[in-house]
Amino acid sequence: MTNGKLILLRHGQSAWNASNQFTGWVDVNLTTIGEAEAKRGGELLVENNVLPDVVYTSLLRRAIRTANLALDAADRHWIPVVRDWRLNERHYGALQGLNKAETKDKYGDEQYMAWRRSYGTPPPELADDAEYSQAGDVRYKDLESVPRTECLKDVVERFIPYFEEEILPRAKKGENVLVAAHGNSLRALVKYLDNISDDDIAELNIPTGIPLVYEITPEGTVVNPGGTYLDPEAAAAGAAAVANQGGK
Amino acid sequence: MTNGKLILLRHGQSAWNASNQFTGWVDVNLTTIGEAEAKRGGELLVENNVLPDVVYTSLLRRAIRTANLALDAADRHWIPVVRDWRLNERHYGALQGLNKAETKDKYGDEQYMAWRRSYGTPPPELADDAEYSQAGDVRYKDLESVPRTECLKDVVERFIPYFEEEILPRAKKGENVLVAAHGNSLRALVKYLDNISDDDIAELNIPTGIPLVYEITPEGTVVNPGGTYLDPEAAAAGAAAVANQGGK
Repeated sequence: MTNGKLILLRHGQSAWNASNQFTGWVDVNLTTIGEAEAKRGGELLVENNVLPDVVYTSLLRRAIRTANLALDAADRHWIPVVRDWRLNERHYGALQGLNKAETKDKYGDEQYMAWRRSYGTPPPELADDAEYSQAGDVRYKDLESVPRTECLKDVVERFIPYFEEEILPRAKKGENVLVAAHGNSLRALVKYLDNISDDDIAELNIPTGIPLVYEITPEGTVVNPGGTYLDPEAAAAGAAAVANQGGK
Repeated sequence: MTNGKLILLRHGQSAWNASNQFTGWVDVNLTTIGEAEAKRGGELLVENNVLPDVVYTSLLRRAIRTANLALDAADRHWIPVVRDWRLNERHYGALQGLNKAETKDKYGDEQYMAWRRSYGTPPPELADDAEYSQAGDVRYKDLESVPRTECLKDVVERFIPYFEEEILPRAKKGENVLVAAHGNSLRALVKYLDNISDDDIAELNIPTGIPLVYEITPEGTVVNPGGTYLDPEAAAAGAAAVANQGGK
């Protein structure tokens, strides 16, 4: 039996990536650069002959459009699609919509990095009547409660059980599974796949638009710990750029 | 219990609609006009407050992209997606790729209209090694046999059982179901919904990009026979244009 592949793809640049705002569950669109990144991601799949059999996306436009554009470029637009809120970006609480540089200046480096990268400390809650709240968003109407903020631990706890139940079994069966998602939902997944500690995960940054491939045995073991970026040079540059966000 | 809605959406103008070629299962893309039609289709859904809860598409790019663009315009990009080959356009056999006007000139009006509109007479078969054959297309690898040609009756026989099993039950449960498909797969569906005879279906043409809505009771009865186009004037003009294809 052949090994399956998990193909992790962080959405291309979004409007709020470009304007340096915390996004979370706010449903912003891709920029023209982000669209080009998504298309390039699809071309990398073809060049490396890593063709998805099925795609999972979050419920957010930037991940959905990234998947659509990448799959169209890879001539795999016709594969089955599954969407689930558990792949969503971390909910950024009361920070949603705020400028990152201004937030860093206002609250200081330490608090800023704690909100961005600590495993267990969520930002302050976003009020249900706030401009960027998802409290009344129809796409989440079946959730018991819509998050008002999340830390990375919260993302792990909502996403990994779903991953183990729905996604991993497909890779174990030998399928190639594209997971089109977000910086923090993919960090949660990489933490799980590479067994990274709660502390060390703070240092991990995932670049936009470059497929990160994990080969999975039928037993569910990762063949290539750390995964393999399909464009390693661009991935290194992209990860450094993510780490430096908050600069002006 | 509220009635559900079936929302039939024929893909926007494709490259081969524009160049007047028979398309069938050849996976051509939308033109810029087709993209705009798809987007307008989504805006019509919003203006008429007919918001899909789930979308079904064929496995062909022009229908998939039409659905993506319409749903994005309607802010419903996040709904569940199901893709199935049974929604595909009629396979046009050996006509695939040929120019419609040239074919009409070469074979005469009667033969041309029989191939386009007769219920039971398929065009000649397309050879498996022909340029526009789908014999080796990986997306159809699970089919017992990939069609080499189809008449409308063949489309009815592959699509309607699937429709009754998978799609209609959702409308009966009160869901709004978007069916993003093709001129002839939607003609097959309208024939079924409106109980149109094998002869009369020849006269029915479906315009591109304009949602056609059928309201469905919990018992599966159509409330509005003939359906309701969300932009009736544009629909009438579009249907007339389809009827006149083959002109130069």
